[in-house]
Amino acid sequence: MSLIFKPLFEKESSTYTYLLADSNTKEAIIIDAVDETQQRDIGLIEELGLDLKYIIETHVHADHITSSCPLKQKFTNAQIVLGESNPVACADVLIKGQETLKFGDYQITAMATPGHTDGCMSYVVDDKVFTGDALLIRSCGRCDFQGGSADKLFDSIKKIFSLPDETYVYPAHDYGGRTVSTVWEEKAFNEMIGGGVDKVEFVRRVNAMELSLPAKIHVAVPANQVCGSKIISE
Amino acid sequence: MSLIFKPLFEKESSTYTYLLADSNTKEAIIIDAVDETQQRDIGLIEELGLDLKYIIETHVHADHITSSCPLKQKFTNAQIVLGESNPVACADVLIKGQETLKFGDYQITAMATPGHTDGCMSYVVDDKVFTGDALLIRSCGRCDFQGGSADKLFDSIKKIFSLPDETYVYPAHDYGGRTVSTVWEEKAFNEMIGGGVDKVEFVRRVNAMELSLPAKIHVAVPANQVCGSKIISE
Repeated sequence: MSLIFKPLFEKESSTYTYLLADSNTKEAIIIDAVDETQQRDIGLIEELGLDLKYIIETHVHADHITSSCPLKQKFTNAQIVLGESNPVACADVLIKGQETLKFGDYQITAMATPGHTDGCMSYVVDDKVFTGDALLIRSCGRCDFQGGSADKLFDSIKKIFSLPDETYVYPAHDYGGRTVSTVWEEKAFNEMIGGGVDKVEFVRRVNAMELSLPAKIHVAVPANQVCGSKIISE
Repeated sequence: MSLIFKPLFEKESSTYTYLLADSNTKEAIIIDAVDETQQRDIGLIEELGLDLKYIIETHVHADHITSSCPLKQKFTNAQIVLGESNPVACADVLIKGQETLKFGDYQITAMATPGHTDGCMSYVVDDKVFTGDALLIRSCGRCDFQGGSADKLFDSIKKIFSLPDETYVYPAHDYGGRTVSTVWEEKAFNEMIGGGVDKVEFVRRVNAMELSLPAKIHVAVPANQVCGSKIISE
């Protein structure tokens, strides 16, 4: 067996979508799929002959609209997965930390990593962790809406840092075109928490982030609370 | 030993830059670095403590300006590498097909793949091939300037297709946010040459591409012929 692994990129929101599958059984999962790129993703799943089992969200995104619902309409056996703390009506599976889902001979393990939003999950497959907006490359998610908490985010990132140093870090976004990091790199170089920053300093740094609201927040959050099933035009 | 492998993305020209290094010796190479993202790349090389040995171009690009020269000014031991058929004054190494370069315990092997330009090289490291603009994901490079030839490109892609089916294909660009393919996928699904298309049909398809000139061609080609040492403003 081997793992099919396709990192995919949506330019407008700089979002990474990840498609993973067991090359033998063809059972597949997709993480953080985006509305704008749903035709690309559907095409890829069909070409590769994949059997999409789970459509997984790391959290309810504020910056882009998910394609969970359209994907499920296309791949009717797939189940939509979100962390248990998310206020959404459309999830088939509300997963808890440490719970696993199987695709072929592989499994994905949920890790509760609240802080950016209260319902954020990271997911581990083999030597890879998909960190959503909890841990970004050299950065981390903001904590100023959707139940965000810098205090909780510190603990969540420390939990991610408890994974082996060689673990590959695949975030939901990178605005600088970097596609992958590792736990050891983020421990060393992350500008918010790297180099042994303590919780007090981390919270100070998060609160000092200069941020405007995501352009799509008033559209994306309501749309994503129903998994993208109603796309409200701006 | 293990391979440090960082695919990097430049949004404006949708160019992929690849940084590879031996994790033990820290000797590193970079393929198709872009002017706009040179600070990101320099920062990453410095953070990871890498010893940049080779700054490699798959070809003289028409759509973006290389950062080869600025990188060499920063990492003075590095050598600029281009295929032997390229009309450039700034290369330290003019590499031929089948020649190899070492970085730590790894090596990169050049494969002459003319057609998009007459000087195009692909490069193989382990189970990865870096195809420049010869073979793109589900597509291929255009052949209408810089000595391009659809006839030669057909033979070049067939040479890439002679690599093991599982070989990962990393192109210089993807405009749809896909980051990686495999030889078997391109054999099966490439829209120009997949599924057993013959040379006559391939040449017809390449000639039927509807293309405008790259926006930056009149700036990028002269600048890249001196490895980005003189950045001419548009």
